[in-house]
Amino acid sequence: MPPEDFGFGTQIRKSPYFDATVRWGARAFSVYNHMYIPRDFGDPEENFWNLVHHAILCDVAVERQVEITGPDAARFTQLLTPRDLSKMQVGQCKYVLLTNAEGGVLNDPILLKLAEDHFWLSLADSDILLWAQGVAVHSGYEVNLREPDVSPLQLQGPRSAEIMVELFGEGIMDLRYYRLRECELEGIPLVVSRTGWSSERGYEIYLRDSAYGDTLWERIMEAGRPFGLRPGHTSTIRRLEGGMLSYQADADIHTNPFELGMDRLVNLDGDYEFIGKAALRRIREEGVRRRQVGLVIGGERLRGPNTTFWPVWQGGRELGQVTSAVYSPRLEQNIALALVATAGTALGTELEVVTPGGARPATVVERPFFDPNKKLASA
Amino acid sequence: MPPEDFGFGTQIRKSPYFDATVRWGARAFSVYNHMYIPRDFGDPEENFWNLVHHAILCDVAVERQVEITGPDAARFTQLLTPRDLSKMQVGQCKYVLLTNAEGGVLNDPILLKLAEDHFWLSLADSDILLWAQGVAVHSGYEVNLREPDVSPLQLQGPRSAEIMVELFGEGIMDLRYYRLRECELEGIPLVVSRTGWSSERGYEIYLRDSAYGDTLWERIMEAGRPFGLRPGHTSTIRRLEGGMLSYQADADIHTNPFELGMDRLVNLDGDYEFIGKAALRRIREEGVRRRQVGLVIGGERLRGPNTTFWPVWQGGRELGQVTSAVYSPRLEQNIALALVATAGTALGTELEVVTPGGARPATVVERPFFDPNKKLASA
Repeated sequence: MPPEDFGFGTQIRKSPYFDATVRWGARAFSVYNHMYIPRDFGDPEENFWNLVHHAILCDVAVERQVEITGPDAARFTQLLTPRDLSKMQVGQCKYVLLTNAEGGVLNDPILLKLAEDHFWLSLADSDILLWAQGVAVHSGYEVNLREPDVSPLQLQGPRSAEIMVELFGEGIMDLRYYRLRECELEGIPLVVSRTGWSSERGYEIYLRDSAYGDTLWERIMEAGRPFGLRPGHTSTIRRLEGGMLSYQADADIHTNPFELGMDRLVNLDGDYEFIGKAALRRIREEGVRRRQVGLVIGGERLRGPNTTFWPVWQGGRELGQVTSAVYSPRLEQNIALALVATAGTALGTELEVVTPGGARPATVVERPFFDPNKKLASA
Repeated sequence: MPPEDFGFGTQIRKSPYFDATVRWGARAFSVYNHMYIPRDFGDPEENFWNLVHHAILCDVAVERQVEITGPDAARFTQLLTPRDLSKMQVGQCKYVLLTNAEGGVLNDPILLKLAEDHFWLSLADSDILLWAQGVAVHSGYEVNLREPDVSPLQLQGPRSAEIMVELFGEGIMDLRYYRLRECELEGIPLVVSRTGWSSERGYEIYLRDSAYGDTLWERIMEAGRPFGLRPGHTSTIRRLEGGMLSYQADADIHTNPFELGMDRLVNLDGDYEFIGKAALRRIREEGVRRRQVGLVIGGERLRGPNTTFWPVWQGGRELGQVTSAVYSPRLEQNIALALVATAGTALGTELEVVTPGGARPATVVERPFFDPNKKLASA
């Protein structure tokens, strides 16, 4: 099917891998950061098994980068996040939260430090370039903020390391978790990092010249063929098993880091300023009124992910909402993330979830739901 | 078809009119400001004729509002736009551009002044709440910035006035172009304005309590039945006939107001500050290198809107890109907006447009392509 027949307009941007993903069987797209993202290559369970047994290649160019450079780049970057960056090294990546003056979460990007005065924020779904440019207006900091020509791919799954060796040679095995490296592939300029949004071993490959989109995609697919590499998309099943949040679904501008249980990403005791520090101090003192929990939902297997927020009840009282839910064919359970009043958040608490098909029992359980490799969760 | 079958997730927000639009025949949706917007009720030409002959009701809740209140609300709002707001009255609306420090356009919202210290920005597709909150951080201005519970509908077309009388009584005929009024409809709290994104006579109806989404939609459809009101969507054909721009397609952060020919929306000589003033002064002095033009494109009728940016050539040299193109069944012409190097922008210039189906001749023409009512364009 030629791209014309999808009915795409120019108001939503296409990735440099767009044509390649259509050629490789993308059947439906969603929109993320004003760009199309392939979200359907057939059966989502097959995509999940491809990911956990072999490897998948995903177009995540929608993780649009915000580049921070200039003499005050490091100080400005610290201003944007409650996570302590003082010991961050060149070549390191960090999962960070960005907060506004009220302590609300604006995004949960991966921060990449390419040089002492050169950072990228690899974004979840909100216009952080506008936020950062707005903050800079009166900040007095000397920084340059722009979107560079950078388009990431995710190569994720247990066979991803072998495919990376095929592409980049044995040296790539030295790349540690949450580290990045600037490199080339047959003249194509790249940054490669050991990160991803899958809870599996994996890599992100940041293309630094969109003209090579098609070439890069084909080159990786070719290298991956012997290892069972398939074109794919970020897996709702796997990321929920891993307890990873999807911004705009599981958190938004009205959610604070403590509600998400992300205390480890907030340092209120450093001697540096960041936006939201006073508000987060107050929230920590007062305590939160709701928390994110993992739920196992009873009843028959869910047909697909929830398409609305499902109310969560306890003893006739509404306590919150299921934000993401899906059936895990590996766990053979319906698993979910929910934001629930603290009264209903203790492990083992019995709750009721109101789905469009009726009420179901649910139990608060530990997250992640599945974690074969605890050390991955701690970076 | 129940909403579940569309495969919608919770990561993209649903409008309070979502269920109503599905019930009334919405077949496909796009995404705008992180929300679903119905973009297909069948034939887009039928939607166009419904709009120009009768009236259509469109869910434009995606025009998410940024509310600016507080003691410095007026000064802060002026800081965000190059348009002179000093004479803006309570009850007035203005089409404004928002610019960053480089003079790039971040959005082209409708600004509504509800009180001396109470403004709404009714947005095109970018996260201006984040921009505004970022600007506020170090600005020293005392403002509150949030998204209120407000969801606009557009009632557009020549019969819209009669439908409004049916709903609100004869008094609504006093509402002038680009004026707003706070009112109620059978207890439903609303703001009504004589604005819209159609180039036809029309109204926007801002629902102030999302719980009434379904009720309001049904009430308006019922009142409109004798006047031929149909459910619809913003019409690419009609907005292009009117030469109206679609943000992210025809302009983005790298486009400045002068390139768009929107000099009338930029006041560089006032004694107030706004973000981008110095940059826009420099651009005005140096002159722009490209300009938006209207094109009539030859050859057979286009099947649908362009799905990619089409290169524009002259004498073997690439001069720019077609940003939006469509066939107008009323004008019986292919019409387009393009950003072209100034050398190719004089009326009557002959250019070449490279479509996926091959090169076609094109001529630079005046915008709007169709304007039955010149006074509407001047507000």
